[in-house]
Amino acid sequence: MQRSLVLTLAYNGAAYAGFAKQKDERLVTVQGELEKALATYFRHPVETVCAGRTDAGVHALGQVVSCVLDEAEFEGVIPAHLVISLNALTPDDIVVKAVRFESPDFSARFDAMSREYRYRIVTGPVPPLFLKDFAWWRRGELDIDAMREAATHLVGEHDFKSFCKTASAEGKTTMRYVSEVSIAHEEQMGESCLVVKVIGNAFLHSMVRTIVGTLVQVGAGHREPAWVAEVLGARDRNAAGETAPACGLTFWHVSYE
Amino acid sequence: MQRSLVLTLAYNGAAYAGFAKQKDERLVTVQGELEKALATYFRHPVETVCAGRTDAGVHALGQVVSCVLDEAEFEGVIPAHLVISLNALTPDDIVVKAVRFESPDFSARFDAMSREYRYRIVTGPVPPLFLKDFAWWRRGELDIDAMREAATHLVGEHDFKSFCKTASAEGKTTMRYVSEVSIAHEEQMGESCLVVKVIGNAFLHSMVRTIVGTLVQVGAGHREPAWVAEVLGARDRNAAGETAPACGLTFWHVSYE
Repeated sequence: MQRSLVLTLAYNGAAYAGFAKQKDERLVTVQGELEKALATYFRHPVETVCAGRTDAGVHALGQVVSCVLDEAEFEGVIPAHLVISLNALTPDDIVVKAVRFESPDFSARFDAMSREYRYRIVTGPVPPLFLKDFAWWRRGELDIDAMREAATHLVGEHDFKSFCKTASAEGKTTMRYVSEVSIAHEEQMGESCLVVKVIGNAFLHSMVRTIVGTLVQVGAGHREPAWVAEVLGARDRNAAGETAPACGLTFWHVSYE
Repeated sequence: MQRSLVLTLAYNGAAYAGFAKQKDERLVTVQGELEKALATYFRHPVETVCAGRTDAGVHALGQVVSCVLDEAEFEGVIPAHLVISLNALTPDDIVVKAVRFESPDFSARFDAMSREYRYRIVTGPVPPLFLKDFAWWRRGELDIDAMREAATHLVGEHDFKSFCKTASAEGKTTMRYVSEVSIAHEEQMGESCLVVKVIGNAFLHSMVRTIVGTLVQVGAGHREPAWVAEVLGARDRNAAGETAPACGLTFWHVSYE
């Protein structure tokens, strides 16, 4: 009999070439470091699947990763102790927040119902200090109301091809369902920032960062809110705004049944 | 005629041997870096005075620094532009948040009415990730109610000699007035922490960190809340708890008339 081990991970993406292992094995990835820790603990190679393949430099607070192992390997293993052991084996910038067990057919990727990302923007002439590595700093102020109006066009089921970095493979859909795009003022570490929260069933490559870059075009006054509907309709990456920098993005939470 | 230039500073203390310049000029200090930036801008050496001489590794969100300059040097200087220029001259981990002008007899140190420090503690088996460099991580849980009861003994005017790292010079008072010691749960960067807020007229060397280390003795169940009154009465540093690590402390705010 087998079981899925499910890990909730936080990481600082600054040092990593993204979550996913790369063909070029010299590239340091979160998955590579995590699988090294799991292989040390279980004494054999372990293959993992994740809920969201974050890009280079993107952070995570609630990434979810699963791997299937023989039930016998978990005999006598207390989840709280496993958390401590794995954190002793991972680098300081990857933290195993929690572990749980699921049936062997559970997949962190395919069973995810929705994914939440948050993007921090600091505006104004003063650079952020504590948020420096966790936000996009833009000197110009942003019109939040205009951004909120623009965001309404993105909610619902749409073809997000204009928001996808890579050309989609033949026959692969670029339809996605976005349930929320909200923008709020927050204070984090004593510094003010804008947080763009995006929740959807699944996301295309660089989709959240392209949404943010596009909303910022509106917030900065370069475009009207209704332009976002045109961008969606164009089904062309060149129609959208720039890809916002990786350091502002955090993969926040994944929901399962 | 002269005027005081008053700067509000944030800094990440990790790379610095404290705020104040040291006799050993090889030590990198916040004051040293700031005075270098001011000397470059004004084209002559500038001497600064600060509201609180933070220790090595301690952070600041609202440190206040003043220097006296000839009024002629400010002719045509727009504060918002000065902020931008100074931030271009300081390292990334020192940020000039704001500048203002005051009369030449203003001193960031002697005119400060009260100073606020905040200390972050993360508890539990899971290490902090985003708060790693800004909090004291302790695996054991803390009894907040006991810490709050203990904290009441510290509020008011007391001789805080037991909470002072260095032996006070002959004739120097160790009496200080503490107006608030509060403890709250907060979420910062998506991670839970305890924040110990301490406000007082002025502080002795390592006083806040010794207060935190002492309250933690109570929170961990090693001592009763009333023990803090005994510590105060002892007037002996050995009576108090350990000095909490520097990275958890941030010099938060200074109030003037």
